[in-house]
Amino acid sequence: MDCSVLQKLRYEYKPKLPAILAGEAGDISIELGEPTEAVADAGALKELFKATYGKPVATFSRGKNEKISRELKVGVILSGGQAPGGHNVIAGLFDGLKKGNPASKLYGFLGGPGGLVDNKAVELTAEKIAPYRNTGGFDMIGSGRTKIETPQQFAAALKTALTLSLDAVVVVGGDDSNTNAALLAEYFLEKGSAIQVIGCPKTIDGDLKNEHIETSFGFDTACKTYSELIGNIQRDAASARKYWHFIRLMGRSASHITLECALQTQPNISLISEEVAEKEVSLNQLVNDICQSVIRRAENNENFGVILIPEGLIEFIPEMKKLISELNDIMAAKEEEFSKITSFIDQMYWLGKELSGESYTLLQTLPAEIARQLLLDRDPHGNVMVSWIDTEKLLINMVTKLLAKFKEDGVYKGKFSAVGHFFGYEGRCAFPSNFDADYCYALGYSAFVLAANGLTGYVSSVKNLATPASQWVAGGVPLTMMMNLEQRHGAKKPVIKKALVELEGRPFQVFAAARETWAVQTSFLYPGAIQYFGPAELCDQASKTLLLEKGR
Amino acid sequence: MDCSVLQKLRYEYKPKLPAILAGEAGDISIELGEPTEAVADAGALKELFKATYGKPVATFSRGKNEKISRELKVGVILSGGQAPGGHNVIAGLFDGLKKGNPASKLYGFLGGPGGLVDNKAVELTAEKIAPYRNTGGFDMIGSGRTKIETPQQFAAALKTALTLSLDAVVVVGGDDSNTNAALLAEYFLEKGSAIQVIGCPKTIDGDLKNEHIETSFGFDTACKTYSELIGNIQRDAASARKYWHFIRLMGRSASHITLECALQTQPNISLISEEVAEKEVSLNQLVNDICQSVIRRAENNENFGVILIPEGLIEFIPEMKKLISELNDIMAAKEEEFSKITSFIDQMYWLGKELSGESYTLLQTLPAEIARQLLLDRDPHGNVMVSWIDTEKLLINMVTKLLAKFKEDGVYKGKFSAVGHFFGYEGRCAFPSNFDADYCYALGYSAFVLAANGLTGYVSSVKNLATPASQWVAGGVPLTMMMNLEQRHGAKKPVIKKALVELEGRPFQVFAAARETWAVQTSFLYPGAIQYFGPAELCDQASKTLLLEKGR
Repeated sequence: MDCSVLQKLRYEYKPKLPAILAGEAGDISIELGEPTEAVADAGALKELFKATYGKPVATFSRGKNEKISRELKVGVILSGGQAPGGHNVIAGLFDGLKKGNPASKLYGFLGGPGGLVDNKAVELTAEKIAPYRNTGGFDMIGSGRTKIETPQQFAAALKTALTLSLDAVVVVGGDDSNTNAALLAEYFLEKGSAIQVIGCPKTIDGDLKNEHIETSFGFDTACKTYSELIGNIQRDAASARKYWHFIRLMGRSASHITLECALQTQPNISLISEEVAEKEVSLNQLVNDICQSVIRRAENNENFGVILIPEGLIEFIPEMKKLISELNDIMAAKEEEFSKITSFIDQMYWLGKELSGESYTLLQTLPAEIARQLLLDRDPHGNVMVSWIDTEKLLINMVTKLLAKFKEDGVYKGKFSAVGHFFGYEGRCAFPSNFDADYCYALGYSAFVLAANGLTGYVSSVKNLATPASQWVAGGVPLTMMMNLEQRHGAKKPVIKKALVELEGRPFQVFAAARETWAVQTSFLYPGAIQYFGPAELCDQASKTLLLEKGR
Repeated sequence: MDCSVLQKLRYEYKPKLPAILAGEAGDISIELGEPTEAVADAGALKELFKATYGKPVATFSRGKNEKISRELKVGVILSGGQAPGGHNVIAGLFDGLKKGNPASKLYGFLGGPGGLVDNKAVELTAEKIAPYRNTGGFDMIGSGRTKIETPQQFAAALKTALTLSLDAVVVVGGDDSNTNAALLAEYFLEKGSAIQVIGCPKTIDGDLKNEHIETSFGFDTACKTYSELIGNIQRDAASARKYWHFIRLMGRSASHITLECALQTQPNISLISEEVAEKEVSLNQLVNDICQSVIRRAENNENFGVILIPEGLIEFIPEMKKLISELNDIMAAKEEEFSKITSFIDQMYWLGKELSGESYTLLQTLPAEIARQLLLDRDPHGNVMVSWIDTEKLLINMVTKLLAKFKEDGVYKGKFSAVGHFFGYEGRCAFPSNFDADYCYALGYSAFVLAANGLTGYVSSVKNLATPASQWVAGGVPLTMMMNLEQRHGAKKPVIKKALVELEGRPFQVFAAARETWAVQTSFLYPGAIQYFGPAELCDQASKTLLLEKGR
């Protein structure tokens, strides 16, 4: 495989492990605590997870453990969107397995959970894994978004696992995929199979987080990559002194990415969806807030700036949320009728009769391009594709118009020229930072220890991440402990609770304390590109969000 | 100043210098060669540059030189778009000046050439420069695009230089700015002033290049930053296996950036404007070529890919060039009439009577969004803002339509989903790579030596860049040597000839030899983020373009 210089050098990187995992494999024993409870809906979850509910938290400690050297067959799945470090989870799992018993085998399911259902697997050997160590992407075995939902899919998954004589399946994924892992663990036991299922917490969005999962992997690298770009754009803005850059970032449900990037780069304005929802900020109010920053900076002769926008924002603006929800309902009920109307003007006229007055007025005031996106870009369920909406263009359009009005009124005397950006794909497959490379390797290795000890329905857990890797604490957490019931497609379903940005949490508080200054004074930070070979203060730091949450 | 960890560490970086500059300042003497000639139009240029035409190339060698310790006052200007390393030109110039004579002074003109005209200057001290060493941006003194053109502007520039008792002005800029430097040098002598003018070759576009300028600074860092992002997107594409990414890159006149990024990342398709012009490739042919790659990759079950597009592309497509030229002419002649027509449909109808039949047909076949951009986004001269046109969206739209047709015909059986990107601002202000940090520092230091020796109308030159910095060769090249006459706004003007991508040159040839394979087989390279602290093979390499041009 033809490869870049960095790639070749990263192959040689030896991920740092927690002390307990760095020692002899046979010297890792497991301690189990008290039975646990789900975060909510304990009764209902107990019914749903008869075999796996309420298991104890598992921690590793020094002690002879013969189970570690069992000969194992394990299958691994990469599920959902790419996140930097996925390959290292596989490498850590593989190295653990081989350290435990050289005869153990690891299979990789191809193209995500669908590979388990359809029995598409390859054996992962040292040679196969070598050219993927410490590099980004999920291309070693691919990923996919198939959800194992139907009885047929569950049965097929079991059949594949039995055919391959697997002892365990490791599912690397986000909240949905780990919920799926819990259901699979329960299903296998229900069907009398001892095949274990173990999850690993992945998602660049950072919303798979709780008492036992301090961060999901990939968040660190993705945010550092976006922050590099934001910093570069800020420096350009401060040099050229003539553009306002509106930068949309990934994060549909939660704004952790935007908040982390804001802490790393200190732009003028960063919109946090959770705050917009909590305070019921209207679209006009948001636009007005941005204009006030533009006006005050223009008074200092600074006709430039940078604004961060989470891609999910518009779903959190109360009146937009209502409009989108009405559109989804109308399309669900009258899709056929709507699909026959071909011109945009006729579609708008038709919607005038279907939407509430308030939503129709809003739709009419939106820029035509955005209104078109709301009407045309729909997912297979007929829902508006919120992540495809160019929210940065919507805001640029509305800010431009309001500033023109302020100019007429004599309130604003500056010049305003805006540029929009969207960063998403740029960060999901970057070479993992040393933090993510180490964290993922430890998660994979820890998943091996859980598998060797016969645990199922657990997620691999590595904690104490604000300290050097040698002090990290590895173990396993029962998946049911993180669950509650939520409404999904008209029914109550067990799901892992998404972690949203907490307005009372330290990351947001630190941001909130500084943002009024940032809105007016240029306080930009330029983090630069992720570094892998320099001093530890530069190369081995965890995200600001994690450090602040851990009181650093 | 609050700053990032990388920023703090970069302040401590000591740029590597050519051996001749790294020694004692007083031990650098100057050797002058034979008189030189312009690349073309020698007679006319001799008339225009009576005092400065035909000077000899200057090279530095070891030897006692008392001029080096002259007390000097020098002013420096950053001109035009940002390029990584500008701050290091200033640092090298400053350190040279102070090494020559601690009483020498450096002034920075604020906001570009306009600062010289309006006498806006600040003295640059060691304290002022320290927090900008080895960092990106032009924010130490700002930049600007003012062109010193009118007799009043030239007179004002001289007045400022006299007021500050300057010995020399150093202009850091692209081809236009260095042309301006040549005119200023000539003007000062013509007015009987001994104030010298010295240029430095800057531009991320890489089109300021010739026998004596092996590369312009900033090109290396910008291309490495874009290549990091392209590589990340490629890895995402190869992992998700469902998107074609169309990535537009900076480079309006020349496609050096696209070619360099192609060599670094090996995407499926990279369009080179110079080749499109040379072979008179039509828009339909381009779209068809892209479709052929999509179809052949779909046959291998690879419904994903990456395409690089230089932002200037559409100006090089013969029929688009004709359309844009006609639009520019019509707008120049009938702007008032056109501006009264407010609706897009009426504008199109009106243009039907003004444009040639061929151009009107083309305009009608373009996606509405692109047609609108052609009609609405115009610069102050009424010209179409080519760099603002979303060429990636134009191509996505046309490729999607043609593939649908191929599907109907049974020729194509794959799935096609495309995502557009534009990278520009992300790379112009990155922390300079070690190469650019070293090169810029050497250019600035070399400009000091030229200034101390009383030379004017020269550009600072550092050559032999494919070897380690200690072997680089520093000197000065007369600006008139790089000039010819070109048509500008209806008149023949002296300009520095832009270096376009040479289809016979090695960089293009190496690309051309591989691209048929890349178009079908996934051959992606993932360069990753620029590294500053690792081994030299990773951190100190020049661009592939430069290495190939120098036979490496």
